[in-house]
Amino acid sequence: MNTTQAAATDTREKLIEAAITLMRRSGLSGAGINDIVRESGAPKGSVYYFFPKGKQQIVEEALTQYSERIVAFIDSALSSKRKPGEKVKALFNAFAERIELGEFRHSCPVGTVCLDLDSELIGLRFVVAAAFDQYVRAIEPHFPFQDRRRAKSFAGLLLSAIEGAYIRGRADASSKPFQEAGTWLAELVERAGPS
Amino acid sequence: MNTTQAAATDTREKLIEAAITLMRRSGLSGAGINDIVRESGAPKGSVYYFFPKGKQQIVEEALTQYSERIVAFIDSALSSKRKPGEKVKALFNAFAERIELGEFRHSCPVGTVCLDLDSELIGLRFVVAAAFDQYVRAIEPHFPFQDRRRAKSFAGLLLSAIEGAYIRGRADASSKPFQEAGTWLAELVERAGPS
Repeated sequence: MNTTQAAATDTREKLIEAAITLMRRSGLSGAGINDIVRESGAPKGSVYYFFPKGKQQIVEEALTQYSERIVAFIDSALSSKRKPGEKVKALFNAFAERIELGEFRHSCPVGTVCLDLDSELIGLRFVVAAAFDQYVRAIEPHFPFQDRRRAKSFAGLLLSAIEGAYIRGRADASSKPFQEAGTWLAELVERAGPS
Repeated sequence: MNTTQAAATDTREKLIEAAITLMRRSGLSGAGINDIVRESGAPKGSVYYFFPKGKQQIVEEALTQYSERIVAFIDSALSSKRKPGEKVKALFNAFAERIELGEFRHSCPVGTVCLDLDSELIGLRFVVAAAFDQYVRAIEPHFPFQDRRRAKSFAGLLLSAIEGAYIRGRADASSKPFQEAGTWLAELVERAGPS
């Protein structure tokens, strides 16, 4: 890669990172093209150079990149423990730390974008659904229920609780909703889960 | 009340209802003053006549009115059954029906607004937190755990699951996340809950 190519990759990455940061804060509404340019420090024309389809394209790529990171994050938290109850607690503790690091002003951009979808950007619904599907698939193998539907629905429950805890955590500027959910859902999997 | 007063109350109500509808769809971003006026059919000047403090005031009143309704909705769903597990299922079924009625494009405006908060409208965080606090208080007495902290945290877990199921339900255009959470959390309260 020559210097020009490297600089281009760098600008592209900066734009993506800026979109992620802004969406984590306030979804689509805070992530207008002008906001992304301002946050990234990139030159204005660069957005349409790298993302000729505009907002839909940059949002789509940013969500896809972000969700890959979260799949790794989920997998790492769940792999850190062996017993199902401990895995659940480790997962929610990891997200508790995450919301603390963002000072309770950042959450999951897949969630924030999902709740901003109106008819105009409805095409993004499939990007959002695909990201959530990946999260469920990342959780599922860590809880080997014999009944696979049960494994999938348990993973879905954990994801719902994470997304909801982000909302309540931001409202209360607290990571308690994560710890609370982690404690209860660890109890659930210990009593009703795979042995 | 004379005819003029009645018409004024009517216009005010229409503006509030329009704000609620728009916020359920896409949070603060979709509920600009112009959007509210358009959705309500009220004359443009009427917003500042009834809500001299503008967007912050109308959003605040709309969220307060909406959360009163939801407190009644939660209480009614939970009162419909006697056993803890059945209460949990009834609650999640009621919300499942609610997201179906909104054709998976509407969710809880307290949640949508919470994820749209940036530094500009950060004052609304307390309105959002107060609404969630009311929901927790509406749920709590239906699950008489001996340990009151446990009762409160269980109610909090149910609320996190509801808010998260709204996000996933909108992403998938499905009420399944509600049914899934209802089934699991009924199992949890049956195994670990108040007798």
